[in-house]
Amino acid sequence: MPSAEIEWVKKYWDGLAAAEQPKSMQAMRLLDDHWATLTAEPADVDYRHEVVGGVRCLWAEPKGGLADRVLLCFHGGGYMMGSPYSHRKLYGHLAAVVGCRALLVGYRLTPENPFPAQIDDAASAYRGLLAAGIDGSKIALVGDSAGGGLALALALRTRDERLPAPAAVMGMSAWTDMSLLGASYDTNRETDRVFRKEMVGGLVAMLLGPDGDRTNPYASPLHGNLAGLPPVFLQAGGDEAILDDSVSFAAKAREEGVDVRLDVFPGLLHTFQMAAGRAPEADDALGRLADWVRPRLGIMNV
Amino acid sequence: MPSAEIEWVKKYWDGLAAAEQPKSMQAMRLLDDHWATLTAEPADVDYRHEVVGGVRCLWAEPKGGLADRVLLCFHGGGYMMGSPYSHRKLYGHLAAVVGCRALLVGYRLTPENPFPAQIDDAASAYRGLLAAGIDGSKIALVGDSAGGGLALALALRTRDERLPAPAAVMGMSAWTDMSLLGASYDTNRETDRVFRKEMVGGLVAMLLGPDGDRTNPYASPLHGNLAGLPPVFLQAGGDEAILDDSVSFAAKAREEGVDVRLDVFPGLLHTFQMAAGRAPEADDALGRLADWVRPRLGIMNV
Repeated sequence: MPSAEIEWVKKYWDGLAAAEQPKSMQAMRLLDDHWATLTAEPADVDYRHEVVGGVRCLWAEPKGGLADRVLLCFHGGGYMMGSPYSHRKLYGHLAAVVGCRALLVGYRLTPENPFPAQIDDAASAYRGLLAAGIDGSKIALVGDSAGGGLALALALRTRDERLPAPAAVMGMSAWTDMSLLGASYDTNRETDRVFRKEMVGGLVAMLLGPDGDRTNPYASPLHGNLAGLPPVFLQAGGDEAILDDSVSFAAKAREEGVDVRLDVFPGLLHTFQMAAGRAPEADDALGRLADWVRPRLGIMNV
Repeated sequence: MPSAEIEWVKKYWDGLAAAEQPKSMQAMRLLDDHWATLTAEPADVDYRHEVVGGVRCLWAEPKGGLADRVLLCFHGGGYMMGSPYSHRKLYGHLAAVVGCRALLVGYRLTPENPFPAQIDDAASAYRGLLAAGIDGSKIALVGDSAGGGLALALALRTRDERLPAPAAVMGMSAWTDMSLLGASYDTNRETDRVFRKEMVGGLVAMLLGPDGDRTNPYASPLHGNLAGLPPVFLQAGGDEAILDDSVSFAAKAREEGVDVRLDVFPGLLHTFQMAAGRAPEADDALGRLADWVRPRLGIMNV
């Protein structure tokens, strides 16, 4: 009997014959690759596996990019899916437009590895870069969705542990609040049918368990003391359910003296930047991140 | 107004909410990435762009693999779609199991570039490897579908041009006959609803034009003089429409004195090996290719 997996080949061709895509994938994580199909392949970006600070990582190295400046990248996926592979092309595009290397961190996922495995791995990778001789001032943190929250949490942790600070932090549709207080869950409920409070609550339970503290700043940076953070640039889609995770974070950070910028893209959805290389809106958003971060990393405009 | 492309993001999330995949992609070539989702990401294979012999190529380099042995790989896609990216993971798996490097050739595609652009680029890449000091005896040619035909055609051309011969040639569902003589187009018409003669005829027209010679051996290696070819290993699915492209080639090659092996996999479809890393049938097939080619490349079994 053919395996369940080989049947996907048949489903694929059947679907192509009917001008449709295959309809069923067994597990959520197998959707990763389909998610990645939103992103065009960036030209002339090479990829190299390396264990950094004990964490499995993937370098994205644009031809001609600076080797001594690093975007430390945290993929999205609700802490339970996604990988450096699903977001390889997204951060490959960003690295190419910034003009330096990107390191995609393969942090551990829920439910097998609940909090604080994610922030621990993020901190280990950051320490690994420092140990490799890359100064914090030459590292920018960036992430999307859960990875955006993780980038912000890592910035808090480097401050708390008095590590050399990163030069900047960027978030795309960053998920910053495990207590799910955002009003946008309600106001954008009809435009964003995926990230409804009941679904996102399931992700929180996988990360923190039934009784874990929803306001721990390393899981919910929105609830942290934000004073002393490096400059922050957040982007969010105007139609997404967790829009307020960015809006509230930006407001609080500004209040606490952080140099913060928030760009909301009307009519767009969660992590629309995944359409990089295909959709002008996505390339525009990545271009804004690049223009903003380049001087902060000491990269001259070319 | 949102671009057509950014709407894919919405379609994607809409589809996920409905537990379905997005249904429409504007152009055939955008299906490449979806095709690639059949293949799991191979662990610890690095990727590096290089122009070889004037042709844009992508190296797939497994950690610990031999650098002085090369699988020269030609992707499928009917000569009009596919790319080193769509088949990156497939040949990454094969390189890993063989234990050497793979070079994926970004040959020019139809209809923009009709025959003989494809065989010319294939020959240029091969000459580029020779010029880089890699002996023919350390190069194996391999391809799937149109790329399988191209690998066989390149073997003919290296013989005709008295270039150093490659060590071996491998084809997965190789498309060897532009005259579409195979009886399997009819006998497997119901099991393979994609590669029907009318569709494949359209691909031929793009490659050769309305009047081009359907029996030119560099387009249709089945119609060539096969004497003196290096050892050949062909694999095909028993249910696929172009099964006879492999069956007939193997029979003719054997008759003309070539060391040839043909494995037909009952019940399987065109290039089922794309499920590498997920489906045991695909991994079994790649394992057979590896076991067969390793001694021919002088690689000791580990």
